[in-house]
Amino acid sequence: MAQGNELRTFFEPKGVALVGISRTPGFGYGIPLVLKEHGWDGHIHLVNIAGGTLHDMPVYQRVADVPDPVDLAIVLVPARLVSSVLPEIANRGIKHVIIETAGFAEIGEVGQALQTETKETAHRLGLRIIGPNCVGVVNTANRFASVEIMDEALTPGPVSIIAQSGVFGNILLDGLHEKEVFIAKAVTLGNRLDVNECEVLNYLHQDDQTKVIMMYLEGAADGRLLLETLGRVTRDKPVIILKGGRTPAGRAATASHTASLSGEDQLYEAVFRQTGAIRAESLDQLVRLARTFATQPHPAGNRLAIVTGSGSLGVLATDSATSGGLTLPHLSETTERTVREAAPDWMNVRNPLDTGPSTQFSAALRAVVADPDIDMVLGITILPYAIFSSFEPLGLTPEMWFGDIDAIHAARPEKPLVICAIGNERFIGLIRKTSGRKVPVFDSPEGAAGTLASLAKYGSWKKSSR
Amino acid sequence: MAQGNELRTFFEPKGVALVGISRTPGFGYGIPLVLKEHGWDGHIHLVNIAGGTLHDMPVYQRVADVPDPVDLAIVLVPARLVSSVLPEIANRGIKHVIIETAGFAEIGEVGQALQTETKETAHRLGLRIIGPNCVGVVNTANRFASVEIMDEALTPGPVSIIAQSGVFGNILLDGLHEKEVFIAKAVTLGNRLDVNECEVLNYLHQDDQTKVIMMYLEGAADGRLLLETLGRVTRDKPVIILKGGRTPAGRAATASHTASLSGEDQLYEAVFRQTGAIRAESLDQLVRLARTFATQPHPAGNRLAIVTGSGSLGVLATDSATSGGLTLPHLSETTERTVREAAPDWMNVRNPLDTGPSTQFSAALRAVVADPDIDMVLGITILPYAIFSSFEPLGLTPEMWFGDIDAIHAARPEKPLVICAIGNERFIGLIRKTSGRKVPVFDSPEGAAGTLASLAKYGSWKKSSR
Repeated sequence: MAQGNELRTFFEPKGVALVGISRTPGFGYGIPLVLKEHGWDGHIHLVNIAGGTLHDMPVYQRVADVPDPVDLAIVLVPARLVSSVLPEIANRGIKHVIIETAGFAEIGEVGQALQTETKETAHRLGLRIIGPNCVGVVNTANRFASVEIMDEALTPGPVSIIAQSGVFGNILLDGLHEKEVFIAKAVTLGNRLDVNECEVLNYLHQDDQTKVIMMYLEGAADGRLLLETLGRVTRDKPVIILKGGRTPAGRAATASHTASLSGEDQLYEAVFRQTGAIRAESLDQLVRLARTFATQPHPAGNRLAIVTGSGSLGVLATDSATSGGLTLPHLSETTERTVREAAPDWMNVRNPLDTGPSTQFSAALRAVVADPDIDMVLGITILPYAIFSSFEPLGLTPEMWFGDIDAIHAARPEKPLVICAIGNERFIGLIRKTSGRKVPVFDSPEGAAGTLASLAKYGSWKKSSR
Repeated sequence: MAQGNELRTFFEPKGVALVGISRTPGFGYGIPLVLKEHGWDGHIHLVNIAGGTLHDMPVYQRVADVPDPVDLAIVLVPARLVSSVLPEIANRGIKHVIIETAGFAEIGEVGQALQTETKETAHRLGLRIIGPNCVGVVNTANRFASVEIMDEALTPGPVSIIAQSGVFGNILLDGLHEKEVFIAKAVTLGNRLDVNECEVLNYLHQDDQTKVIMMYLEGAADGRLLLETLGRVTRDKPVIILKGGRTPAGRAATASHTASLSGEDQLYEAVFRQTGAIRAESLDQLVRLARTFATQPHPAGNRLAIVTGSGSLGVLATDSATSGGLTLPHLSETTERTVREAAPDWMNVRNPLDTGPSTQFSAALRAVVADPDIDMVLGITILPYAIFSSFEPLGLTPEMWFGDIDAIHAARPEKPLVICAIGNERFIGLIRKTSGRKVPVFDSPEGAAGTLASLAKYGSWKKSSR
């Protein structure tokens, strides 16, 4: 725990020295600009031996010249110079350093030697290091970001990210807000010369803003420690992990990327199973899981009901759900009666419940959400666009057809509800609106059902680990 | 073959009787309207005992009253009446009938009895039937569609669709054009009272407009026939299949959906393996495969090169590619030399080739596409949006960073090239533009690599089946 708290300065610095800023395009030029735009003007201090100004801010020639307060350094100088700027930083009383520079262990022997030297120097000086070969951190609460980031990505939310790779973290942040995943904190760890994913997990475990942790991992810095840490953190917060390097060729690629030894995949599979960590099968699923865990409660059991406008999509979702350990029980007598009352002859009142082209979707959805023998619900909101658009001018809205999904969920907030919408993008957009900010809408039946299976698995693990 | 040709009238009718049109919203109201809008005014004849007009077209009281020419009937009357309208249709000299009405075998005993009766009647009268419980056919060449469909979905293309479920087919058509998949023909088969997927496969096999067949299958009408038919068709045209009902619960759901007996999944797996059919693992992948097979050649071998702006995404793609049977060989000496020449020190010139934040992406992509020891290429075009957008006002375009991808592919059209772009939607849109109509752009590294693996598998099967 104590170790985790040492990371606080990385996310909440009082003042930041940017060592190695540059007047030519690149990180050294862009990062100070972005920090300034995000309100860090006056708290960031640019350092380059050439002096002068950049983005209308003074450039100090030495770290020693930087005024108070300053407790974090971001290092952007070339790899061969990194080791030599660390003493300057330590002498200025700074203990926390983000090294963004690449060209260390990930490029082979020469880089490995540089990394060893840097590590020894940092250790000798008592510095805590994130990186090298990373883009550092993001904290949406104070809009601090050691990376060039879109303004929209700084909308605060409950999800925190741990990524080894800088670019990967950056790219995730570019798209997550469009998928309604909002961030508390993000860290990219790079070659993990010092700070590793376990220490960050401990920090995020304690962090009030973080409710869900998503993680891209190529290889554990310390497998035993990861097992222990995950086992502890997942008791309180879900940790969703996408693991790169499942195959021998993928593992070989991780070595030249973040200098990770990713190890056999079955070892990781065992670690995740033993700790209640949630494994994402793909990048898409990582994002869907983050969205679902950030908004949905953990279900009381594993009983799923599916209400669908398309039988086929109901079948695909059923396959995915039951493969993930869910059951689709018979609907209770009350629910069945309620739905059958207004249903046309041709409608099968079963689970999955295919309402087809009838107008029964919203009544059916309400009934299964209220059913005490159902733990969670997947709604597959389908209406051919040509039909929808021909009735739209007459006043048809998605709410009229599918119900006010936001309100249906709000009436039973303890029951997970996820929506799958397929087809025309504009239609999917309207369903998103109807579903509100709290109900996830995905365009994959297998993916949507899979998130509910993961939610149930985690809920059950959490109960059993008490 | 001869059997397949009997289906032609379904797609190229001279005149169509719509039996059971309606003045209240529903298929009976919408389908005649859509056909009229698509230029079928004058070739469609509406039938309802009430007479009068609909959408400014006359309504005939009996099928017997319908003028020449007429060779196809679309039946929209309630299930219990279907059997009684078939003699009227046969008496008018019509041999081809699409029954869209639901409420047959898929709803249980009563419906099963109706279906048996309908089947016997049809057989006695010598009628060929598509359906019931379907939305019939689409032919983009003559804009004939027995289904309410968006205008954009009628853009002609090389992909034909076989779906059991009507809604599913409809929904696919709503979204495919947005994913740059364009259609030749589509059929939804429903309960397959007569015409089944094998007969349609034979028809599409002979159809000049169809280059790729995509199929959603819940259960084969005749497993042995499917094996034989697929084995024959896939020698000339790829058949991509998404199978619903993999699990016991999924299979149970297919019974109440299209009255399919879907059978054990391993039987299907064996059929697909023995015939060179391409199995899609998800709905998303079905669409990605259709896009890739519609635009890319079959690779000469299984040697993949990946050029990526993100190491992590390169790792994920490598895992997916090698799981699918591809190899990532060392780059040839020439390629390595070419790339290394301009590359910064920190860049690993390997495969996957991570160009990171260097400006070497386009040179590297060109080099591996030209490399004779590489059979296909995946480009992962990554650039953090904040960085891209800060240089955009200075004139930076995606082509400047990633190369003119369209032209790179056009220079070596015999080599499959697929792009993966992740991040901000606007950025992905720009990459799509740079990549042109011929190079697929996907936002999933696993999915993109998976399409190349399927392409190689099919190419190798096709060679071995000669």
